[in-house]
Amino acid sequence: MTALAPLLRGQSPAYGAPIPLAEAKRVLAAAQAEAAKNNWSVAIAVVDSGGHLVALERMDTTQYGSVEVALEKARTASAFRRPSKLFQDSVAAGGEGLRMLNLTGAMPIEGGVPLVSGGKIVGAIGVSGVTSAQDGQIAAAGAAALK
Amino acid sequence: MTALAPLLRGQSPAYGAPIPLAEAKRVLAAAQAEAAKNNWSVAIAVVDSGGHLVALERMDTTQYGSVEVALEKARTASAFRRPSKLFQDSVAAGGEGLRMLNLTGAMPIEGGVPLVSGGKIVGAIGVSGVTSAQDGQIAAAGAAALK
Amino acid sequence: MTALAPLLRGQSPAYGAPIPLAEAKRVLAAAQAEAAKNNWSVAIAVVDSGGHLVALERMDTTQYGSVEVALEKARTASAFRRPSKLFQDSVAAGGEGLRMLNLTGAMPIEGGVPLVSGGKIVGAIGVSGVTSAQDGQIAAAGAAALK
Amino acid sequence: MTALAPLLRGQSPAYGAPIPLAEAKRVLAAAQAEAAKNNWSVAIAVVDSGGHLVALERMDTTQYGSVEVALEKARTASAFRRPSKLFQDSVAAGGEGLRMLNLTGAMPIEGGVPLVSGGKIVGAIGVSGVTSAQDGQIAAAGAAALK
Repeated sequence: MTALAPLLRGQSPAYGAPIPLAEAKRVLAAAQAEAAKNNWSVAIAVVDSGGHLVALERMDTTQYGSVEVALEKARTASAFRRPSKLFQDSVAAGGEGLRMLNLTGAMPIEGGVPLVSGGKIVGAIGVSGVTSAQDGQIAAAGAAALK
Repeated sequence: MTALAPLLRGQSPAYGAPIPLAEAKRVLAAAQAEAAKNNWSVAIAVVDSGGHLVALERMDTTQYGSVEVALEKARTASAFRRPSKLFQDSVAAGGEGLRMLNLTGAMPIEGGVPLVSGGKIVGAIGVSGVTSAQDGQIAAAGAAALK
Repeated sequence: MTALAPLLRGQSPAYGAPIPLAEAKRVLAAAQAEAAKNNWSVAIAVVDSGGHLVALERMDTTQYGSVEVALEKARTASAFRRPSKLFQDSVAAGGEGLRMLNLTGAMPIEGGVPLVSGGKIVGAIGVSGVTSAQDGQIAAAGAAALK
Repeated sequence: MTALAPLLRGQSPAYGAPIPLAEAKRVLAAAQAEAAKNNWSVAIAVVDSGGHLVALERMDTTQYGSVEVALEKARTASAFRRPSKLFQDSVAAGGEGLRMLNLTGAMPIEGGVPLVSGGKIVGAIGVSGVTSAQDGQIAAAGAAALK
């Protein structure tokens, strides 16, 4: 997860070219492997550096409400070039941080993570279906498939 | 209400076939009886396991704003396979739980309850018109009509 | 269908009080009887004189896309105090009539009919599921239940 | 494509259980193979019998506007249990058929086809990226992967 460390410090790389489908499927497969290993069922969305869907899969028995949530988490991470957990942390801090509940295009729930390749943000992954910490664990496993 | 206990612990059954109209009307009638017994006026929506309306009735003197609210509560319970009260509880807990104010497709207000039949989620009921605790009481009475 | 004749000539009565639930259910039952008699499956929506849902039922085996269509047809008939078929006729006439494809709040498809009681429009019924002419036949049967 | 013949005559099977992910991926792969064979780039969406996404892939060099279009075509075919081409044909016929431009939830453009398995509609496939006739050819190839 070395690639994520600077993102968590708010240092966001520039956007790169959109992630190719083959790479997106590699990310998706790594995320699914992490979910399956833990016997979790989730929806996983991979968007490109413009926030547009490249690949999405919903594992059997996943609640269908998770489809839209996974997509929104991915869009959040792409649009703001940072993990959606950072917005969740703002909300959790209360006070001024609550304004993040109204940040257009940002879902303040863990589980969305930018995808970095060659030092550039090429897209993002979003996961939904279990607890948001678990969703985040799956998303990180997916993001780690790119180096 | 035994069927609801596991849902409240977050253990959601799989989706089953969509609830038939006759069953939906039985759920709706049981909910209306609970409302009438307390002299309450509400809108009641029953959706299927895909979140699509099967039956809806608004009792006389119910504010019309409750129609959409009842429907959204039912959709929430179907899409996430749990009572909408669980999201309300997250919000009430404050801190990180406030993120549930921004979960796409989830209305964090008591009164939406999954409908379980044969161990599967066949739909959901949503109620709006009185206090959300009373809405929830009516929804539970409706859900209990299925065994 | 005597009550509909003036509507078809574009002479719309004033709005009256919202249709009560008991009356809406009578309309809905009459419409369902007409559908069942023909072995048709449809969604039927009854809205009040403000265009807000009072009762809706979707018969088993009806495509779920018909739920929203039935509701829109009913809303059209209530909002414009005339059968949705009149807008369909405009579209069918072509030329200037095509503008009705962009009349906000109007679905130009047969199957939505105002409900008249005591010489006032108390709501509307919308039907979807079979051909639009058949939908219209069912809606008319429902509307005829009020006199 | 025998399974499509009755759909094209307007005879729609009942809804069945949601298509499992493994089947959805088989449909998607067959559609992609048809696209690749012709050197076409498209977005392909597979939804379940409730209209919710199960799998989506966008081939490299496909315009991103096609993502939403593919999804809407799939939703149309699922919600109305028929190929989206039937609505396109209505529009093409002109006159009264133009009303289909305003059918809520129905995109009147070829490329959305129901998925039939065991005689039931288990979902739908939607394709966008080339001409709509080519989109339809790809969708049909995907649908044919289920028998």
